Amino acid sequence: MGAYYETVRTRSLDLVEGLSPEDMGLQSMEDASPAKWHLAHTSWFFEQFILKEYQADYQSPDDRFAFLFNSYYVKMGPRHTRSNRGLISRPDVDAVLAYRFHVDAAMQALLHQDRTDTGDVLELAILGCHHEMQHQELLVTDLLHALSHNPLLPAYREPTPAPVAKAAPLDWIEHGGGLLEIGHDGNGFAYDCEGPRHKTYLRPFRLASRLVTNGDWIEFMQAGGYQSAEHWLSDAWACKQREDWDAPLYWWQQDDQWWSYTLRGPQPVDLNAPVVHVSYYEADAFARWSGQRLPTEAEWEVIAREYPIKGNFLETGNHRPVASQHPNDPQLWGDVWEWTQSPFTPYPGFRAPKGAVGEYNGKFMCNQFVLRGGSCATPIDQMRSSYRTFFYPHQRWQMLGLRLADDV
Amino acid sequence: MGAYYETVRTRSLDLVEGLSPEDMGLQSMEDASPAKWHLAHTSWFFEQFILKEYQADYQSPDDRFAFLFNSYYVKMGPRHTRSNRGLISRPDVDAVLAYRFHVDAAMQALLHQDRTDTGDVLELAILGCHHEMQHQELLVTDLLHALSHNPLLPAYREPTPAPVAKAAPLDWIEHGGGLLEIGHDGNGFAYDCEGPRHKTYLRPFRLASRLVTNGDWIEFMQAGGYQSAEHWLSDAWACKQREDWDAPLYWWQQDDQWWSYTLRGPQPVDLNAPVVHVSYYEADAFARWSGQRLPTEAEWEVIAREYPIKGNFLETGNHRPVASQHPNDPQLWGDVWEWTQSPFTPYPGFRAPKGAVGEYNGKFMCNQFVLRGGSCATPIDQMRSSYRTFFYPHQRWQMLGLRLADDV
Amino acid sequence: MGAYYETVRTRSLDLVEGLSPEDMGLQSMEDASPAKWHLAHTSWFFEQFILKEYQADYQSPDDRFAFLFNSYYVKMGPRHTRSNRGLISRPDVDAVLAYRFHVDAAMQALLHQDRTDTGDVLELAILGCHHEMQHQELLVTDLLHALSHNPLLPAYREPTPAPVAKAAPLDWIEHGGGLLEIGHDGNGFAYDCEGPRHKTYLRPFRLASRLVTNGDWIEFMQAGGYQSAEHWLSDAWACKQREDWDAPLYWWQQDDQWWSYTLRGPQPVDLNAPVVHVSYYEADAFARWSGQRLPTEAEWEVIAREYPIKGNFLETGNHRPVASQHPNDPQLWGDVWEWTQSPFTPYPGFRAPKGAVGEYNGKFMCNQFVLRGGSCATPIDQMRSSYRTFFYPHQRWQMLGLRLADDV
Amino acid sequence: MGAYYETVRTRSLDLVEGLSPEDMGLQSMEDASPAKWHLAHTSWFFEQFILKEYQADYQSPDDRFAFLFNSYYVKMGPRHTRSNRGLISRPDVDAVLAYRFHVDAAMQALLHQDRTDTGDVLELAILGCHHEMQHQELLVTDLLHALSHNPLLPAYREPTPAPVAKAAPLDWIEHGGGLLEIGHDGNGFAYDCEGPRHKTYLRPFRLASRLVTNGDWIEFMQAGGYQSAEHWLSDAWACKQREDWDAPLYWWQQDDQWWSYTLRGPQPVDLNAPVVHVSYYEADAFARWSGQRLPTEAEWEVIAREYPIKGNFLETGNHRPVASQHPNDPQLWGDVWEWTQSPFTPYPGFRAPKGAVGEYNGKFMCNQFVLRGGSCATPIDQMRSSYRTFFYPHQRWQMLGLRLADDV
Repeated sequence: MGAYYETVRTRSLDLVEGLSPEDMGLQSMEDASPAKWHLAHTSWFFEQFILKEYQADYQSPDDRFAFLFNSYYVKMGPRHTRSNRGLISRPDVDAVLAYRFHVDAAMQALLHQDRTDTGDVLELAILGCHHEMQHQELLVTDLLHALSHNPLLPAYREPTPAPVAKAAPLDWIEHGGGLLEIGHDGNGFAYDCEGPRHKTYLRPFRLASRLVTNGDWIEFMQAGGYQSAEHWLSDAWACKQREDWDAPLYWWQQDDQWWSYTLRGPQPVDLNAPVVHVSYYEADAFARWSGQRLPTEAEWEVIAREYPIKGNFLETGNHRPVASQHPNDPQLWGDVWEWTQSPFTPYPGFRAPKGAVGEYNGKFMCNQFVLRGGSCATPIDQMRSSYRTFFYPHQRWQMLGLRLADDV
Repeated sequence: MGAYYETVRTRSLDLVEGLSPEDMGLQSMEDASPAKWHLAHTSWFFEQFILKEYQADYQSPDDRFAFLFNSYYVKMGPRHTRSNRGLISRPDVDAVLAYRFHVDAAMQALLHQDRTDTGDVLELAILGCHHEMQHQELLVTDLLHALSHNPLLPAYREPTPAPVAKAAPLDWIEHGGGLLEIGHDGNGFAYDCEGPRHKTYLRPFRLASRLVTNGDWIEFMQAGGYQSAEHWLSDAWACKQREDWDAPLYWWQQDDQWWSYTLRGPQPVDLNAPVVHVSYYEADAFARWSGQRLPTEAEWEVIAREYPIKGNFLETGNHRPVASQHPNDPQLWGDVWEWTQSPFTPYPGFRAPKGAVGEYNGKFMCNQFVLRGGSCATPIDQMRSSYRTFFYPHQRWQMLGLRLADDV
Repeated sequence: MGAYYETVRTRSLDLVEGLSPEDMGLQSMEDASPAKWHLAHTSWFFEQFILKEYQADYQSPDDRFAFLFNSYYVKMGPRHTRSNRGLISRPDVDAVLAYRFHVDAAMQALLHQDRTDTGDVLELAILGCHHEMQHQELLVTDLLHALSHNPLLPAYREPTPAPVAKAAPLDWIEHGGGLLEIGHDGNGFAYDCEGPRHKTYLRPFRLASRLVTNGDWIEFMQAGGYQSAEHWLSDAWACKQREDWDAPLYWWQQDDQWWSYTLRGPQPVDLNAPVVHVSYYEADAFARWSGQRLPTEAEWEVIAREYPIKGNFLETGNHRPVASQHPNDPQLWGDVWEWTQSPFTPYPGFRAPKGAVGEYNGKFMCNQFVLRGGSCATPIDQMRSSYRTFFYPHQRWQMLGLRLADDV
Repeated sequence: MGAYYETVRTRSLDLVEGLSPEDMGLQSMEDASPAKWHLAHTSWFFEQFILKEYQADYQSPDDRFAFLFNSYYVKMGPRHTRSNRGLISRPDVDAVLAYRFHVDAAMQALLHQDRTDTGDVLELAILGCHHEMQHQELLVTDLLHALSHNPLLPAYREPTPAPVAKAAPLDWIEHGGGLLEIGHDGNGFAYDCEGPRHKTYLRPFRLASRLVTNGDWIEFMQAGGYQSAEHWLSDAWACKQREDWDAPLYWWQQDDQWWSYTLRGPQPVDLNAPVVHVSYYEADAFARWSGQRLPTEAEWEVIAREYPIKGNFLETGNHRPVASQHPNDPQLWGDVWEWTQSPFTPYPGFRAPKGAVGEYNGKFMCNQFVLRGGSCATPIDQMRSSYRTFFYPHQRWQMLGLRLADDV
């Protein structure tokens, strides 16, 4: 476990390599947090849920960090205002790194102790590692959002070319439906919201054999997709008008060419790559315009679990979705999170765990939609076929895309 | 059909009896509309979807009413701004009544014609009547909201006493679950969103044998229900704080007694009557605090369809929920709409109808929750076990209450 | 005094002749009030400041009216929320008229009493009449604003043609400046803020011999006046962009012709008539673009007091500004209030009177600008050369125009 | 001039000594800017108005800085969004310092050239130095505001004790009034808005012999100053309620002792020191409560020009107002800017200069009030008796205080 812990923790540091202290302090909206805050908060998580509970003599380097770096755990006491995370110039980056190393040393000592409650500690340590991986994804997507506000459009990583390929024609993966089980079966790590495993009844359906591409999306735009309310949900159209959307987030047009701002700086839009940075509202409108629909999360899960988990995850270093490199790869894993039509609700029989850990997912089961499959910003270790992430239908700053589905 | 049409239309006029033109013009928020607007809009519905389609020589008394009184049908052209409906002093009430009578005369003529397309006309006329019944409910609840802004707290109807009774102790109605069918089967009238009838798998569960009462709610309040975030969804707590809720809508405390503003003026809160004017956010927090949960809409439907549809509907003239008058009546029908934990989503295989009528429900399938059972403001004719109404989780001005459920 | 009182009070009723109860209940923004409210509030003023003070046995028809119809007199107790005045359907118009007649009867009785404190009563009665005249002006301008939200663009009064004439060429009225006295000298009625009369030093200056016309304004528009920040104050440009102004309030373009909505319905813009419904921000930008400036209130006063007070006031029934009918009439009086560059501040030595009457003007001496001269909505009796009205620089719904000034 | 230039420029660097790059990037509200931005913008000012105009071969290190670091000069082209200055992590602090040195080297070369237009260059260079001094004041007050959002309440400078003294009893400085001249006479540097020198008529008046102290302010608070609308302007009270003010900015109460957050960290409030961080709205309410009033700017100027300019300016390093150290020193200079009752309007005959420099003050002559005398954050070189600074009546983050005045 100590080695796994170190691997996960080290990757967070790798992700901020090359960033200035100023870069690491940026907060561009309430939904996003500074890189420095992510580094501190993930350390706080280990400190709060493990070290303070299981290491009697543990001393925090600064007791006030519990206030500064708690995210939303009401049971863990009051927290700093979320929208003001970008105003915490002190502790500075060096102090936050020292905090991390302090926590790491204590964690390693704890993990190497011979204890009667090792099982509990390990379980929480694994949770902490998965928690950190979630924040790794947020760290890079939040940074993309923050840097996008700089008129100089700086690149997070060198603007090397992405692998190219021709998108396959749209085909379908069929499924006969029936009374099926989905959800996590309890073997190995999973978040609370992935269970209980339960029966659900599906009618025959089919999923598209590939993701919706930028080329597809431009067709939608050229067909007036952003000009007419016809295919949009009522709330969706109101949002589109309020926010003045006429293309995915980070896109602009220049001399008849669409460009997008990416972690590798401004790039021409690759027509064969999956579209990304579209909201649920846009994804749903696209699907209706196509005459199809978005999949449910159950449909997605029963198909995807038949495919090996590999693809364009954070580890590839692409830092953006790329065209499918294999004609037969449906890209169910990686590249972009896929919007489903399923609201994020508790599975039948779900009960949030006792204590502050119970706030992890349960209290967000309202007003959000489930996405599946991970993205180019997701560490591959996080992935499972039962993994549910969730965002509000208006949000676009994550690596969010879509795949079509249909009844048979 | 002509007689049924007249019955429905007449009830709308009964509902505004005794109101001044000024009362009928009030709009107290964007979600609510003036009574006069409801009278006009329901007439527009018949004019637009039937008379203009099927009566070649039909002449509207004023072509501009199509703009003023379209609610949200994008395909029917541009509309007047929703939040400004209270600023339409002209046409005045007399002109709107004349519009109604004009439409009624044309409708009666049409309904008595011998036509080859009588089936289509009848289908739309029935839809129009159900549409009008929905607006009858909105008319009284919108009026309650509007009058509540008058510091004089005027009564819509004379403050006669409501029937009283002692609430039964909480008991449970059990169900063994299984693979069941829900949704409308296509026989008789139903809205598009009630179908298709489809299989769904339920685990064993139970529903409370009675609604949550005002007495129950005061217990929740006394236990600090509005003071601690513990049982609240994250969005719910944020809303509660923003809106400064500490009791159901229309409640206030005076000399150790809770009062509420009702259609029959200020009334002491009856501890045995069902609680009303609570949002989904509050209902869900109450259920979690109780250690139970809200039912799903499928759970509600498979239980309720075993009970006859009768109870405290609009026709009783109570104009507010009342304590159950029969110890064994679970009050599944009438009194208050019951929040379910089911987001308002399309049933499997749902496709919105072609044309503007397809906007009736489909475009609202996002961000709202389903409620079941009708209320003391609902005409009983509207009710079916498959009937789904839906509101946003923060809304409270309708007759909204709850019933607990639990896993077995 | 009794006859004067009756004349003033009767005119308020004349102004609402032909309006429906629905028209009289409209409130289209917080700054504006329903006609019914104006009728009630002006009656409350007499009741509160005179009848309750000087008529020992006076009984209000409803004690709650003191809450409903107090405008902003903090010392007179709590008030109804200003933005909700349009939601007071009850008391209805008939009840408000009955309230007026009740107050009138009591006032007439009081005015005919033989009392030792007749002087005090008369002074307050005169104040109440002037107060009522101010509300007569607001009544019609608030109504214009409210009716403008009706897509049917109804006319308050029959759309008879306005008198036309050719605007005179721009000339100048010169003044040599010096140490001069301005402000009210205490003879006859004046509001507190018009005094004390005091010395002020003026440099030589000149005022335009006519008001800025619609023709002038269209030149400004055609020269890009609304397209470039060049001539605008910083706050002005921000407001223009936020509010999306590109013409005076109530203007629109149709087939190469500018139209405006008026109390006599939609009318083509008369190039020779004074421009109206422009904010201070626009007036100031126009003046800078012209290479001149707005006058100060002292400059205006020392010129205007040399001219007789006559012109296009409320009594003409024009209900809109009209072209000057006499080539030598500078239209200093009536037609439109003239923006000055003077912030509304206390004159040297000003002290607000004791008691609630002291709230009349003193507490508004911040963030507003003085206008002079009265308008086509002002009863002529209100006018004096020392009269100062004041509005916020972004406001446009009153009859607001301008005249240029310059240094010599 | 070269030496003077260097002195001014060096002080900006002294002010950021000890700050981390993260501190220097903070922006806590739209009104305030990051320290790094101030360093860059002041350099841009020299580059844009002097180097690009007078040094034909001048090359900017980065042409995009003209976009990033223009503040509000519309005529100098488009600008970066003001509220997003805190999101410019790149250029980083090192790059901004390099920019400064680049500009400094070019400026020194230019200042040492033998030119025919040396007069113009010098005039602009002096303007640039005064401009930089204004930003030095903003830099420290903006930083105070930004750091105040950090729950750790870090100190900008070491929390050394401030000099203490007993406040003198309130006395008065009388003046007989008359027709007097105020404004800058054109000898030496002044901003455009300080002229033209002009006659103004003053009635006899008196100014308090000392500033209002924290002790005075606490009396006002204890007398219910923040609890009753009685002494507040209407807009003031609305603002107070909206912003929930109950003490000056940065104050809090702890164990019966008032504390304030300062540039030297949290400090107990010194009853003898001048009150600071109060808005015009509060200052005006205090003055009315006291039975006096705020001075006009003319009253202040005719008194203050009789006193030598010395006191607690930026150079003392106190970094906060301190009690008067000399019983006879009225503290007219330094410590806190003194609110006057004079709106910031153009002096008679004022015309903004041609070109972008004309935007310096002229376009802000609306909705703001004049303050006089400089503060503990003002470089003393900036001060003159004609100096007018101006802020909106709701603003509090600058070093803003007050002195009473009265009629005689």
